[in-house]
Amino acid sequence: MPINRQIVLDNRPQGEASVQNFRLVTSETPPLQEGQVLVRHHFLSLDPYMRGRMNDSKSYAASQPLGEVMIGGTVGEIVESRHEGYCVGDKVVGMGGWQEYSVVDANQSGVLRKVDTSRVPLSAYLGAVGMPGVTAYYGLVHILEPKAGQTVTVTAAAGAVGSAYAALAKARGCRVVGIAGGYEKCRYATQELGYDACIDYKEHRNEVRSLSQALRDACPDGIDGHFENVGGWIMDAVMLRMNAFSRMALCGLIAGYDGQPVPMANPSLILINRMRIEGFIVSEQMQVWPAALKELGELVAEGKLRPRESIAQGIEAAPEAFIGMLKGRNFGKQLVKLL
Amino acid sequence: MPINRQIVLDNRPQGEASVQNFRLVTSETPPLQEGQVLVRHHFLSLDPYMRGRMNDSKSYAASQPLGEVMIGGTVGEIVESRHEGYCVGDKVVGMGGWQEYSVVDANQSGVLRKVDTSRVPLSAYLGAVGMPGVTAYYGLVHILEPKAGQTVTVTAAAGAVGSAYAALAKARGCRVVGIAGGYEKCRYATQELGYDACIDYKEHRNEVRSLSQALRDACPDGIDGHFENVGGWIMDAVMLRMNAFSRMALCGLIAGYDGQPVPMANPSLILINRMRIEGFIVSEQMQVWPAALKELGELVAEGKLRPRESIAQGIEAAPEAFIGMLKGRNFGKQLVKLL
Repeated sequence: MPINRQIVLDNRPQGEASVQNFRLVTSETPPLQEGQVLVRHHFLSLDPYMRGRMNDSKSYAASQPLGEVMIGGTVGEIVESRHEGYCVGDKVVGMGGWQEYSVVDANQSGVLRKVDTSRVPLSAYLGAVGMPGVTAYYGLVHILEPKAGQTVTVTAAAGAVGSAYAALAKARGCRVVGIAGGYEKCRYATQELGYDACIDYKEHRNEVRSLSQALRDACPDGIDGHFENVGGWIMDAVMLRMNAFSRMALCGLIAGYDGQPVPMANPSLILINRMRIEGFIVSEQMQVWPAALKELGELVAEGKLRPRESIAQGIEAAPEAFIGMLKGRNFGKQLVKLL
Repeated sequence: MPINRQIVLDNRPQGEASVQNFRLVTSETPPLQEGQVLVRHHFLSLDPYMRGRMNDSKSYAASQPLGEVMIGGTVGEIVESRHEGYCVGDKVVGMGGWQEYSVVDANQSGVLRKVDTSRVPLSAYLGAVGMPGVTAYYGLVHILEPKAGQTVTVTAAAGAVGSAYAALAKARGCRVVGIAGGYEKCRYATQELGYDACIDYKEHRNEVRSLSQALRDACPDGIDGHFENVGGWIMDAVMLRMNAFSRMALCGLIAGYDGQPVPMANPSLILINRMRIEGFIVSEQMQVWPAALKELGELVAEGKLRPRESIAQGIEAAPEAFIGMLKGRNFGKQLVKLL
């Protein structure tokens, strides 16, 4: 039986998350039961939602139990199979967690999905053609519903969700403006991801009015749809530029993950501008995944969406890579290479 | 020509609005042009939206120009007509403003509407079968879309919008819980307006947790839809009780009318509970008025919706009645009797 190195949640963050919250453990993979397969993970996906799971408090998702392997999306390869639908060598995407191997009961529907790597690289199924891509798709297509010629914006613009969002918005004839942290990310957003403009919020040092003015310059016709990944003062600045009858998709609020209160400064703008704001979780919207994955797969295959990846090496590097991603140190989709 | 007493906006509020912002003027009504009618107002409606118009700042509606007659809904009677569609004695509803008479160009569509007073009293066309009633209808029926058995809530529960909301929600089989200021208003809400429960926010003295606990008791299954007229700490308390996939219609934010900032404490609840929040202005939703007025008229005619009215006497009493309404001193729909 192969040796499986795993990262478990050892203790919960007091305030900011740190690498001390995690612990590396080692176990032998158990023998397969009938209907099970053994997956050797090639890549682990690190995503902001995991931070919410580390808390004990009520969130939109179940809390991560202490002492258990951290939840996480993985792509890999079948290395042993006792299920007739899977052969050794099949490439699969699943929720294998922060570990090198997983044993999966393949009869459960939806836990594993075979993927075609002839035109799309395996790792892309964790990003552009995976959960982050579908997240961008649902927010843009089903909540914001922009028309050609409208202006749409997004925070964390250079990340996995943002890069898919830009490609999907350009495909719909929108002007798409990003907000990201740092000159390099903004340059990458406009030069490689297709953004019409990208604003570096770090230049505005928590000043709502200053960022709002930059948004006015970048969005001369105002903002018709906004996709929010961050919250806090950046969202407050965006709110000041939203048009009448505009919409906002609320997908993540990284600003509040460490427990500090993050108010919305001026909710009366929702009324003044007759806005609609809607929160969502993409895993509850499974009906859109097939159409979303089809369009995203085509965009990747055609080279219209090729976001960069930040790749950490080895399962032991996962905690530090995760903390770095929460602080915005990654560039594009954050992965851990496990093979 | 009859003498017309009018109230104009004399100067803009610095902070709270006061009677000093208004001025009484007198003029002669001008002779009618072809196509015009002269309306003698019986009642003027006083509504919270007027406070927003008094400010110079950007709001959802045009600012009220200084020196001009205050905007306002009126019901009255045609006393002179040079339009073939209107006869002397016809009862009409319109936007005649804070004055005793108005000259109306009846060829303009939508400025006057003849009403039937055989089953519905004239004044009701300013309340339950008028703008406040349609406001409740649009928010409940088109934004909250509750199902029978769900729990819906509303602030300013004993007011003109709230009373229509309760009747419409009960007609749809909902549990309806109000929030109002004071024991008398809450008793009136449950005994006369049909609320299943009504919470007196004054008992909770700006304490979000205390009000939220009272809401938990009154809404044991949580809140599926909320209609917000107030904002601020009351809205924060409601947010803590909203269910997954719940909706909130944002109609008014009285708490912020005087210019002080009124943040939303915890917008991450929008995400955690996958909520939809939507602001609206009923005058932009004219397509719903016919169906809304039909249902509201029936509810009034059948005696299922007979909200109280607070009636001030004479145009000179309008400013003080208006300020009182903003402070919650009125009981039910605030009107000024002009004849």
